[in-house]
This record gives sequence, C-alpha cells and structure tokens, in this order.
Amino acid sequence: MSEREITFLPHNKKINVKDGEILLRAALEAGVHINASCGGAGICGKCRVMIEDGQVEGGINERLSQEDIDHGYRLACQSKVIGDLVVRVPVESEIDTGLLNKAATPRKTARIKEMNLDMLKEQGLFIPPIEKIYLELPPPTNEDHLPDVTRLVNYLKIKHNKHGLMFDLPLIRKIPDILRKNDFKVTVSLAKPVHEGRQTHIINVESGNTVDHNYAIAMDIGTTTVYGQLLDLITGEVLAQNGQYNGQISYGEDVITRLMYAEQGDGLETLHQVIIKTINTIIDKICHRAKINCEEINAISIAGNTTMTQLLLKVNPRYIRRSPYVPAATLYPPINAASLGMNLEEHVTALVYPAISSYVGGDIVAGVMGSGFYRSEELTLFIDIGTNAEIVIGNKDWMACAACSAGPAFEGGGIEFGMRAAKGAIEDFSIDPISWEPMNMTIGNVLPIGISGSGLISIIATLFEMGVIDSQGKYNRNLATDRIREQNGIGEYVLAYKDLAGIDRDIVLTEIDIDNLIRAKGAIYSGFMTLLSEVGLGIGDLEKIILSGGFGSYVDLEKAMIIGLLPEIDPEKVTFVGNGSLMGAKMSSLTNRLRQDVVDVTRKMTNFELSETQSYMDHYVAALFLPHTDVNQFPKLKERLKSRNLLQ
Amino acid sequence: MSEREITFLPHNKKINVKDGEILLRAALEAGVHINASCGGAGICGKCRVMIEDGQVEGGINERLSQEDIDHGYRLACQSKVIGDLVVRVPVESEIDTGLLNKAATPRKTARIKEMNLDMLKEQGLFIPPIEKIYLELPPPTNEDHLPDVTRLVNYLKIKHNKHGLMFDLPLIRKIPDILRKNDFKVTVSLAKPVHEGRQTHIINVESGNTVDHNYAIAMDIGTTTVYGQLLDLITGEVLAQNGQYNGQISYGEDVITRLMYAEQGDGLETLHQVIIKTINTIIDKICHRAKINCEEINAISIAGNTTMTQLLLKVNPRYIRRSPYVPAATLYPPINAASLGMNLEEHVTALVYPAISSYVGGDIVAGVMGSGFYRSEELTLFIDIGTNAEIVIGNKDWMACAACSAGPAFEGGGIEFGMRAAKGAIEDFSIDPISWEPMNMTIGNVLPIGISGSGLISIIATLFEMGVIDSQGKYNRNLATDRIREQNGIGEYVLAYKDLAGIDRDIVLTEIDIDNLIRAKGAIYSGFMTLLSEVGLGIGDLEKIILSGGFGSYVDLEKAMIIGLLPEIDPEKVTFVGNGSLMGAKMSSLTNRLRQDVVDVTRKMTNFELSETQSYMDHYVAALFLPHTDVNQFPKLKERLKSRNLLQ
Repeated sequence: MSEREITFLPHNKKINVKDGEILLRAALEAGVHINASCGGAGICGKCRVMIEDGQVEGGINERLSQEDIDHGYRLACQSKVIGDLVVRVPVESEIDTGLLNKAATPRKTARIKEMNLDMLKEQGLFIPPIEKIYLELPPPTNEDHLPDVTRLVNYLKIKHNKHGLMFDLPLIRKIPDILRKNDFKVTVSLAKPVHEGRQTHIINVESGNTVDHNYAIAMDIGTTTVYGQLLDLITGEVLAQNGQYNGQISYGEDVITRLMYAEQGDGLETLHQVIIKTINTIIDKICHRAKINCEEINAISIAGNTTMTQLLLKVNPRYIRRSPYVPAATLYPPINAASLGMNLEEHVTALVYPAISSYVGGDIVAGVMGSGFYRSEELTLFIDIGTNAEIVIGNKDWMACAACSAGPAFEGGGIEFGMRAAKGAIEDFSIDPISWEPMNMTIGNVLPIGISGSGLISIIATLFEMGVIDSQGKYNRNLATDRIREQNGIGEYVLAYKDLAGIDRDIVLTEIDIDNLIRAKGAIYSGFMTLLSEVGLGIGDLEKIILSGGFGSYVDLEKAMIIGLLPEIDPEKVTFVGNGSLMGAKMSSLTNRLRQDVVDVTRKMTNFELSETQSYMDHYVAALFLPHTDVNQFPKLKERLKSRNLLQ
Repeated sequence: MSEREITFLPHNKKINVKDGEILLRAALEAGVHINASCGGAGICGKCRVMIEDGQVEGGINERLSQEDIDHGYRLACQSKVIGDLVVRVPVESEIDTGLLNKAATPRKTARIKEMNLDMLKEQGLFIPPIEKIYLELPPPTNEDHLPDVTRLVNYLKIKHNKHGLMFDLPLIRKIPDILRKNDFKVTVSLAKPVHEGRQTHIINVESGNTVDHNYAIAMDIGTTTVYGQLLDLITGEVLAQNGQYNGQISYGEDVITRLMYAEQGDGLETLHQVIIKTINTIIDKICHRAKINCEEINAISIAGNTTMTQLLLKVNPRYIRRSPYVPAATLYPPINAASLGMNLEEHVTALVYPAISSYVGGDIVAGVMGSGFYRSEELTLFIDIGTNAEIVIGNKDWMACAACSAGPAFEGGGIEFGMRAAKGAIEDFSIDPISWEPMNMTIGNVLPIGISGSGLISIIATLFEMGVIDSQGKYNRNLATDRIREQNGIGEYVLAYKDLAGIDRDIVLTEIDIDNLIRAKGAIYSGFMTLLSEVGLGIGDLEKIILSGGFGSYVDLEKAMIIGLLPEIDPEKVTFVGNGSLMGAKMSSLTNRLRQDVVDVTRKMTNFELSETQSYMDHYVAALFLPHTDVNQFPKLKERLKSRNLLQ
C-alpha cells in the first residue's frame, strides 16, 4: 500500500499514513486532537475538518450542511485517506493554537516482532523436530531375510548415517504391511531427540514418497482462548490458524474458578475432556482450512499456564490454589497425544512447555523461548499482561520471574464501563485542552459502549498529562467543563453522553476506576522493581522490553509510561511479540534447538513469590501514584509536567 | 528324605533311592529288567519279586497268593521303599542270568540346573530392576514451594545420590495426593535403565513405607501353555506360579494354524485378546495364591516364540509363515503393560524378550540368557525340543542358531499311540532279553494308554540296543515272541495287550512310528551338525549340552544318545534347565544385568535357515539311521553293539 502525507493545520504537524486510513485515526496518530464523542461513528458531527488540499473518500453525511460540504468540510471519522492532504482542524480561538502542541504525544505502539523465518534458516536454526526421508529398501530374499524393522534401521544406518535409532510398538505394528504396499518404497519420519545426546526415534513409516507432507501443530492453551497453528515443517510456514474460546469457560471464567470446579466430583475429568474437545475442534479446523489430512501431522507443541497445563494433562491442580501454591510438576515428559484424547495419530508426541511455578507457567516460558529473550545479551524485561501479569527480567545467563496479581483492570474488570477489546470499546482518546471535549476512537468506529484496557491507559494517561487528574488520580474539579462531575463525592469524567453512546447511559470514567487501574499498574511496576532490586539492579539498567499477550498489541507505549505501567525507555527498545505462548509453541515446532534448550532455560529462571519477598510491599506502595511516588524515575515525563506547571 | 540302598539279585546291582520310591521304578533306574505289562498299575501281576532282606510298604494285592506273600513275594510296582532292601528278581533259567547285564543301561536323566539365588547374590548379580526407597520428604513451606515432582527428584539426588531421574505422566498424576496422604512420607519405585548409561525412571510413588512389597512377574508364553511366576524382588524368591493352557488353542493347535487364523478378519485382534485373557488369569491366580495385591507388581518380563510375541503385541504375523519368513521386528521396545490390556498398574512396563528370527524366538533367547549359556566359556549345545526344535551352539563370544522342523513326534504327534506326557503314558521301558517281555512304566502308575515322547525314545533305544530293531528301525521278525507281528507288511511290537491296557486296543509301536521318530531326531541331529560344520567344528568339540523345554525333563540321556538324538557325551555334561523361556523371564526380573546384556547377546547370535544351508540335506540323510550312518560318531555305543554282535 502506498503511503500518504497528511499535514494538519494550524498545528502544522505532518504524518505519513497508509492509503485507506481513517482521517480521524491519522490525527490521533499525529497527536492532533479533534473533538469526537461518538467513537468515530459519524453521529456527533464534531469531527468536522476542512480539506484544504487533496481529496478524501467519503466524509459526507447528514451531519454536514451542503454549504459545509461545498466549503470542503468533511467528517474526519468518515473520511478515508486516498492521497496527500492538507487538513485544517477548526479551533475556537487564537489562544487555542498556542496550546495545540501541548496535546498528548503522538501514539507509539510497540514494534511488532515476528518470527523471522529467513533469519532462522540463515542461522541454521530451522531444524524441524521431525525429519522425513524417502527410502527404496531392497526387498527381502531367501538370502536376506532381516526382520522388517531391522531392515529399515540398518538401511538408515548405512545409507543415511542415522545411528542408534529407537522405535515403538506402533511402528512395529505398522511396518509389515506398509513395506509391502509399494514394493518396499517408503517414507520414514524421524523424531529428533528432545534432549541432546539422546536417541532419534523412528516414529512413522508411510508407503511411497510423502516427504513433502510433514506438518506440526503449535497450540496455546489460554484460560480464555485457545489458539492453534498448522505448520508446514518443510517450508516453516503457517498454513492455517484458528482460535476458539476455551470450552472450560462454561465451568468458570478464570483460573481460580476452574481450580475450584476441578475439585468437585469428576470436575477434573470434565475440564480435561472439555479442553481436549476444544483442541480437537481447532485441529479439525486448521487441517480443513489448509486442506491437509490430520494423519499427516507428526508433532504438536503446547504451551499454557500451569493450571491449564495440569487440566490438559488431567493432573489434580488442587494444591495450586492453596498456600504454599505447589504445582504437581513443572517439567512434563513427552506425552502420546492420542492417549490424551487428541485426534492425532498414535505416533504423535505432544511436547508441553515446562512451567516455573504455580503462577509462572509454560505460556511464559514459551514466550521467553519464542521471543528469543533467552538468547539475548541485553538486560530485558518481559511482560505478559492478562488477569495476572507475569514478568521476567534477565538475559541469556540468568532470569528472575514473578507473577503479579494485577487484577482484571487491563481486561476491563473492576472498571465501571470496562470491557474486552471488542467492537464499541473506546481504545484511543485525546482531550481538547481548552474545552476539555474528548476525542473517542472506538474499535469498529461505532458508538462507544465501554472502555478497553488500552483505552483505559490512553484515557488516564491523557487526563493526567493534561492536568485533568492529579497524581493520585483525583479529578481537578475546577476545570471549566460539565464533563467533570461528582456522584456521591466520587469524581467522574463523561466520555460520552448517552445520546452519543451505544448504551442507554452516559459512559464515564470514575475515580474508583482510576484507582483500580493505579493498583493494577502498581502491582506490575512494583513487580519488576522488586525483581530488579533483588538482583541488585535498577530501572536504568533495562535495555529492552518485550510485551506479550493480546493486551500489548495496541497499548500506546508513551501512555503506558505516563501512568507508570512501563518504565520510561526509548519506545524503539520495546517490542511486541503478540501471543508469546503461541509463538513459543510454534518456534519449538520449527527448531529442535529450542526444545533442547528449554529445560536449561527453566533451570536459569528463578521464581520469586512477591508476597513472600520483603521489599515488594514498599515498592508497591510507592507505585500507587501517577506515575510513581518518585517521579525522577520518569525524567522525560517530569520535564513535560514541569513545562505545564503540573508538578506538585 | 533319607536314601535307601537296594540290592537286586541275581544281578547284584545296587542303587540308592529316596524313601518312598516305587520298587519297580528303582529297578528301572538300576537297569534291572522286571516284566511289567500294565504300566505299574498292579494288574498284570508280572512284577513279582522276593524281598530277601528288609521291608517294603504295600506290594500286596489279589494277584499274589497267600503262599507267595508268606514267602516274601511282593509286586514291585505296588511296593514302596521304606528301608534298605535285598530284592531277588525271578529269572527263568541259568542262561538268563548271563544275559542280565546286557539289559539296557541304567537310566540317566540330565542334571537339573536350577537358578542359584545365593550364587547370584554372591556374584553381585542380584540386581532387581525395580528398587524401592522409603523417603521422609520435608513438606513444602512458604519458603520452599518446589513442585511436588521436583521435591522428590531433588531429595533423591541429594540424599540418595540418584541422578538424571526421569518420570512419566502417571507419576505426575499420582504425586500430589500421595505426598499429602501421609505427611510427605512415601516410597518411590525406581526402574533401572534397560540400556546401560540410560536413565533411571521414577515409576511409582506410594504413601508410607512399602519397601517390603516389591514384586515382579515372569511369564513364558508357550504355544500350548503359558506359565507365570510371581517373584519377590526383595528376596528373589518365587512366591507362586501357575500354568494355563494358552487360550489361543481353541483357534489352532500349533503356530501355523494360529498364523492362518490371525489373517482372517479380526483374527489378530481375537488372538491378542485371548492371550491377554490367559495372562490376566495367571496374574490373578498367582497374586491370589501369594496373597499379594496385584497393584504391588512393579514389572513383568515376558518370553515367547516369535509368533506368540507378535500375537501378544498385536503385530500382524502374516509374513512369518511366508517365504522368506520375515518377522516384523525382533527387538521390542519396553511396552506399557496396561496398554496391552494386562491387569497391571499403569506404571508397569512389560519387557519382552527379543527374537532372532521368525522361528528362533524370544523363548530361545530367554533360555540362552537364563541358563547362563551366554556367559559360558565352553562350547555349548542348547536344545529346546517341542514341535520345532531350536538349537543354539556357541559360547560367550559367538552363537549360531537354527530352528529344525522336527515335527511333533516328541510330543506324541504322528505316532499311532503317541500322546503328551500325561497320566497313562508309557514313559519308561525295558525288555527281557530272553522272553522279549516288556516292562512298561506309566506316568501315574496306571494302565498304559499311550506312549510319551520320552517313553518313545526309551522304547526305541532299548529295542535297538537289544537287537529287536535294526539301524533302519525294522523289527527282527525272527525273534521268538508273539509280541512282534506284522500288519499289512508293517512290523510292530505289542507293548500292552488290550486286557492290560487302559484302552480297548493293543498298544503297539509300529515301524512307521519308528520311522517318524528317526526323521524327527535326524532333523535335530543334522541341525547341530550343520551349525557345527558351518563354523568349522565337529561333534567332538562340544563341551556341554543344555536341554530346555518340558521334553528334556525326563528324557533318558543314554537312550537319547543311542537313537542319535543327542551326540554321545558324558551325561554329567548335560544339564536340564526345565522351561528355559520361563527361567530367562525370571532371571531378567531378578538381575538387571541380563536385561542390559540381552540386546548384545542377540547381536552375537547368527541365525541359519537350515533349508537354505547347503550342507544340511547331506547331514540330514546321514542322520536317518539308528544312531547314524556313521556309527563312529557314537564310539561307546559302537563298542556295546559290537559286544552283542549287533553291528552290521
């Protein structure tokens, strides 16, 4: 897609965006405020801008008079960029223009770090764990009547230099007929050892030449959602992927309720069956989509948190939720996938990512592995934010990890109008520094119905930086706007009045909501502060941040630093790996090195139970402010606040 | 039991026998002929002897007049030895006494070689593959919340010097509750690696101290009979044993008919299910007898021929019976016993003895291992005689093996009155050199109903040495006895007229029977002659013979040498190991060394397909005589025949 340059006046801010971008969103990216209450639905009519040069597509509806249209006015939320533009944003007065550049910083999301297959290949790390070899064996004769398996093993030894090959009963059962089906022309599947120095297994034998059909599955078992990818082990490509709600949701929304359900009667068996059913649905769908036969899948790698893993393996998770929070195991042996109930061939082994503790699970280890963190020289902070936030700090030589009870604020929980990142959720925000009118951007550009996690960060950061709330998260009740009001002594800001909302109420952000977010971010920030101080390091030593989990995909980094969720660091040093758990599962299906390294990596990972760590409570209390008690930890923000006389 | 000395007159032969021995049998052991047609049933009254000194128990029935009784006559077949005796055997004339010592040689069966547990322990070879250790683990605390498995593994490492321990899913599933059942006091079961240098597995964990309850099962899967033994891995003792007909008999008596059945529809599945059922019956019985809980069994070792093994493992045996006779595999991985359908705990691994070829199976390898052959310096001949005879020649450095199609003669097959070694089978025989009257000894001392395999050898050897048949197995029709007669030109000897038989016909041995036996023994003798000549050795080089299989238990060694079944060798150098297959299975449950050595041993065993070996047919044709075309191979027999002018 072509890039287009847009110049916003009178700010004189330029930004390059892709063809087809919504003009309102482009303004937001450029840090230009345009009033917009309705979330980009084209209803409030407040986002009127004048196109001074160039053309947009759309932008016209009944909110604009014919006169406005003739003068070149368009609704920014309805306009698609199709060429270079000069756009004038109406401002109320001369004073306004002076304040324009005090608007929130331009949006900056984390660089998305995707697995680079070519680099993997260049580094010689593209080592699929299953190798297929086509063989034309000499058929047995009266002089040469080796047993079938021995014939195969000897041939592989002599002609392909494969030594010490192991095999299991399914192979023995299969081999006599398969060999004779096509005149002893067969394809064998060899599984490389998971532990270096161990032996290669002959896991399958097929008639004829099937070396081009070699597939694996990577799967992330999330508490809420299960994702699967079908991988081509020849090319390394993802052929299909699918996500399904974890069927266990019907038995409890979160980990704790699942754990409780598992203790009742045959609850464990039920939860086990249900997750297997979800997995089988995904296997079925991705095979169907890629038009491959499920029988051609040779391996599956799975990552999930400790509870999800124990439920998958039908291991009683009773003691995970009871002090002192002991999992049954954190290392899992290779397991026959069919024996777990998966619709896969008998020769397929499921590799399950090891965990660190009851609350730092295989999903996190997978993220550490898949993101390449574990081979990094730089001091890195890895964060996966969900209901819990798991954090890992370290580099290739050592790692410290912990789970923070962040609570569900980042998923919309405990926030009056909080919601998941779904259609109608306000996900981005700015505020007019004169009128205190909002610009709400919703997912899907529809009337707002709530606030997503990243929206919450964006709103609170903006309100704080613009002086609408103070460092304790309390509204400045002296501002000249009706949008700030009080209910029973609790301050709130009206993001959208109900006539411009998708629900039958005003959408507001209350001081209680803000307090909940501060507690959540405080739990996380103090988590890595604790880990750093336990190993004698400080925030300034961090060289890199890796964000994992759905939450990280859209969060505005600068905003996250303003509220003190992330330490202040060059945004270029922050990468986003998406679903780190799935990425890890995928990577270990593509490079056997990862599978060999993972146990060593878990040995390097020291788990800290924050509740048992003395310094944690001090760090936590200090973090219950915007951005922090010690604003010196955020020097750039401190400068900006100073320039606005907002520093107390 | 005390030993008693018996002196037989006028032969003046002395023999020591155990208290309670039947006098007729003692005579037989001493090489003293006493007429006895009725098999020792006390009916023919021919075995009248006079007790000249000492006392017997019984020996009196209506066949003896009061006068006889008063004179000291007793029926030898009804008399039990209870003290030293002088016994006079009536002879018809002075001439008779001169011939007395030309009667058959005294009976000599092979020395029974039993496993010597004490020696095993002395040699440091008593190394049960499963070790149990009682542990009192420190319970987890807030400061020490290791995962349950890690807690166990670390403790075993630190306190018991056990490194690199592996574990599987069943352990993970079990451990949380077991640990907490009795305050972290548990007993672990460790399975030593089958391959040296591999890793020890933690296979089970039980609450409390159960180190004294550590059991294993050894099992021999015979085509006809399945035997199981329950072993105490603490003491090494056999706690109980049981044999059951292989349930597959209903689907075919022998290997070939089973193979054919397995090819029809779900025949393989059926035969697999049936043998598992037989095994489960035995497991149940031996546990019940020893009053132990089946759940306390930690291991099972299994040996069987190649077909039985493939049926057990549900591996298509189709190509075993088709040229070039290729088995699916000869090495079998450790297999989860429960997954095969055995009523054993999920942690129990079944070790199945490897085979050499389609017709030299794991039962033979087990015999080679269990008998200690594989560690012997001496050139040894190992023979297991059943329907097939399998032979192995070699020592600890090399072995050559082959299967001979001996046919079922030794099991009574193809012999008109042949039968299995069961009640009423003539199992021993001698003949009066004047009257040509027989002495038949039956199993159970009842009226004869047929001839067992060892009886057949005894009869034919005796008839040959006494000149009743010639080296081609034809009767001397000139002898003055009605017992030799002809039916349609085929000579036969009446062993028992129907009035003294347990069946409604005369029991005879025909020239056709003799011919069948000669073919059977010729197949075996030429088998090891072929192996010896293929490796450049001769009969004279043999230093030791090991007999295995039910057949070897009662065979009279001298007689077997007379007919040319066994080479002429000092009987002291012949040992009998009984059920070698079961012995091997047992041994590998008691000493892990065996399990580690077995794969190496199979690599040393070179299989010869006799039908493909050039020299075999020559050896075979030369062996179709009594004892052999070349009587010089039997020098002692040659001398005896010479002295009787029986050498042609």
